[in-house]
Amino acid sequence: MKHLLKLLDCSSEEIVNLLDMADQLKYENKHNIPHRHLEGKSLGLIFEKLSTRTRVSFETGMYQLGGRAMFLSRRDMQTHRGEPMEDTARTLSRYLDGIMLRTYEQEKLERLADCSSVPVISGMTDFAHPCQVLADLMTIRETYAQLEGLKLCYIGDGDNMCNSLIVGGLKTGMEVAVACPKAYRPHPMVLDFAEHQVAEGAKFLLTDDVMEASKDADVVITDAWVSMGKESEAEERHIAFQGYQVNRDVMENAKTGAMVQHCLPAYRGQEITAEIFEEHADEIFEEAENRLHAQKAVLLALLGKKKI
Amino acid sequence: MKHLLKLLDCSSEEIVNLLDMADQLKYENKHNIPHRHLEGKSLGLIFEKLSTRTRVSFETGMYQLGGRAMFLSRRDMQTHRGEPMEDTARTLSRYLDGIMLRTYEQEKLERLADCSSVPVISGMTDFAHPCQVLADLMTIRETYAQLEGLKLCYIGDGDNMCNSLIVGGLKTGMEVAVACPKAYRPHPMVLDFAEHQVAEGAKFLLTDDVMEASKDADVVITDAWVSMGKESEAEERHIAFQGYQVNRDVMENAKTGAMVQHCLPAYRGQEITAEIFEEHADEIFEEAENRLHAQKAVLLALLGKKKI
Amino acid sequence: MKHLLKLLDCSSEEIVNLLDMADQLKYENKHNIPHRHLEGKSLGLIFEKLSTRTRVSFETGMYQLGGRAMFLSRRDMQTHRGEPMEDTARTLSRYLDGIMLRTYEQEKLERLADCSSVPVISGMTDFAHPCQVLADLMTIRETYAQLEGLKLCYIGDGDNMCNSLIVGGLKTGMEVAVACPKAYRPHPMVLDFAEHQVAEGAKFLLTDDVMEASKDADVVITDAWVSMGKESEAEERHIAFQGYQVNRDVMENAKTGAMVQHCLPAYRGQEITAEIFEEHADEIFEEAENRLHAQKAVLLALLGKKKI
Repeated sequence: MKHLLKLLDCSSEEIVNLLDMADQLKYENKHNIPHRHLEGKSLGLIFEKLSTRTRVSFETGMYQLGGRAMFLSRRDMQTHRGEPMEDTARTLSRYLDGIMLRTYEQEKLERLADCSSVPVISGMTDFAHPCQVLADLMTIRETYAQLEGLKLCYIGDGDNMCNSLIVGGLKTGMEVAVACPKAYRPHPMVLDFAEHQVAEGAKFLLTDDVMEASKDADVVITDAWVSMGKESEAEERHIAFQGYQVNRDVMENAKTGAMVQHCLPAYRGQEITAEIFEEHADEIFEEAENRLHAQKAVLLALLGKKKI
Repeated sequence: MKHLLKLLDCSSEEIVNLLDMADQLKYENKHNIPHRHLEGKSLGLIFEKLSTRTRVSFETGMYQLGGRAMFLSRRDMQTHRGEPMEDTARTLSRYLDGIMLRTYEQEKLERLADCSSVPVISGMTDFAHPCQVLADLMTIRETYAQLEGLKLCYIGDGDNMCNSLIVGGLKTGMEVAVACPKAYRPHPMVLDFAEHQVAEGAKFLLTDDVMEASKDADVVITDAWVSMGKESEAEERHIAFQGYQVNRDVMENAKTGAMVQHCLPAYRGQEITAEIFEEHADEIFEEAENRLHAQKAVLLALLGKKKI
Repeated sequence: MKHLLKLLDCSSEEIVNLLDMADQLKYENKHNIPHRHLEGKSLGLIFEKLSTRTRVSFETGMYQLGGRAMFLSRRDMQTHRGEPMEDTARTLSRYLDGIMLRTYEQEKLERLADCSSVPVISGMTDFAHPCQVLADLMTIRETYAQLEGLKLCYIGDGDNMCNSLIVGGLKTGMEVAVACPKAYRPHPMVLDFAEHQVAEGAKFLLTDDVMEASKDADVVITDAWVSMGKESEAEERHIAFQGYQVNRDVMENAKTGAMVQHCLPAYRGQEITAEIFEEHADEIFEEAENRLHAQKAVLLALLGKKKI
């Protein structure tokens, strides 16, 4: 691995290795075992899109690894003034040991990686959210001890979370069922990937029927109806996503004791009821915490001496 | 102590212990004695209101203690997007070892503390400014060696500084005299507290007569007539506060050699004359410096291993 | 040296010592030789003007030296609210071990230095850009092994880069030739300085003829036609600077194998052609990298124990 731009680029083994390393780092963190493997390393965090979790988890993660993260918001950067990405990438590569970018277009992220001589990490794009899904897989594996054979159900917008969950789920041997409105389906590239996996024996379902998707699921996951940057579509989305909600009915349809995951922020009464959210709050905030550990694994894999 | 939200929550002994610890940390700092007691700890600094002093003193303080502070301005956070404080608190508690919040409403700060599993520190609210007043008490004690029996006079707006000075002053055995316009009195909760203290023998005066309040004072303190967030009231405040000024007359009315404190920024010609400000600049900037040491004591008390 | 406000204040020996130290720090960095000489030191970075390179290079530099830099944008500071620079300087001097300021007016920087009890470093003003020019001189010396006797040609706006290159070039024994439109000449104080140097045997040329200036040059340097803050003059500047371009003709007029330097961001087709930029990209991004090393030398000289 040179970069982490999307899970589609990762082998199943690489994903599992990252999850193993994340477990190890979480253990070391909880037991105050020093793990300053990135002493002297600097990571740039470029945000073209707001974020609390991503920023705080990356900054804290780098610090715990002995390194230093630098928060660079779009406002503070000269790309703002029209400097070509190519020049920014070449300059930053001279100062930094790695770059995390959160932006809208996946293409921009890939271009940054092409021009950078240091590793580039996706902090989310409109297409994918690999660090979040690594945290989800980690949390699910903590609960069920393994991922293979579990049924993961995603309900809602066929967005970056949905795309990455399909890829991450199938690559780790899970059955993946997605319920989303016809107009909000996952990305064609992801559906192609799923189709190929199905041809090799994987189980994948794409439906607009919430009950069909959630039937006997081990994990139910959803995401905001109106993600950041989609505010202008709020009204039509509120109509389109009616019924695409994780609620009591859905959870009774899933396996008894099924988990719920949510990448936050959560909008109660929309994609999830307040009641289900609070019942599963421990799992959901564990998932949030696991961003820290999963990202530390990614940082170690890409910026550390021992590559995976 | 679990949080530092307001001095009303602290016992007299806790306040004195913090001041003692602050003195010790200042000594260690001046003599380059390492005191990295918070190695590996992260502190989030959430600012919903501008600040230079608060931010730089907290960031530097955490760094000198071996830890790391992370500046999170409101613009960079998702509470901006309407995420409930409860969720932000639960998430940040997973990544950070402590949270400092500077905001307008005391209620919001208290709510953050209720939802956080890590210590929360007030970086100022409209109600209270405990870290600043700890720095003031520290500076006064450095000058007079003890606080008990000194007369503290506050002139001006019955704002957060005034509230916290009344509580901190009375809790450390000082006589407190406040001169403020009738329409700008301290918070009723603070006046209640003062009344109870008086019943137990404390000396407290609330008046609109600057000369009465400053008579024989050992320390004279004031604050801006128009604090941040009150800009729309500037005109009426300029009228209301005429005469509530620390000037030559006031200082001649106070004890010979009396100290002046000001939490800054200072508006010459309004709450204080340029002449008095410059005469007392050493004390005032020592007070500013003591923010650093007092806050390090708070951080150590709340995030360190040895609790006080 | 107490501050670094402009190269005019530095002796030739001080400049050469800084370049030597920068070479040493670059060597140590490349060979992973620890050089944490500023352990425990804090540097404030005040930006009243955007910057990627300046910020990231200073933050990374302080971190590599074992210290800590704190990014303070204008938005986050109380000078914004009208606090006098004098008070901000006196307060920050209590918390920080050094202050870097990027602003428009040189006078403001000098005033900050006057009021600060800690070293102040220019991160660029409208008058000068000393850190950038130290990086340029370092890069040129890396290529030619020495500076004395080389011909430096600057083409374009008689701006801060031009001012600092004239001073830095002449102080290190280079011949300096500047081609700029008559209405965009270097600062009179710099031309005075150059005149005095010429009287002592230095070679300096100011012309509006690009070919005259670039004839047999060892290094050709340019800068954006429309620097930050000059956007309102864009149209007239585009007209005035026609022909003031580093292109194939200019490079064929210069010495064979001459270097090109550019402080970035670069506007292809304006002050430099895309072709020449890419041919010299290695030198230009080495120059960008050398910001890091040159500034670490400045930090060490001003904040470290061994002063130069």
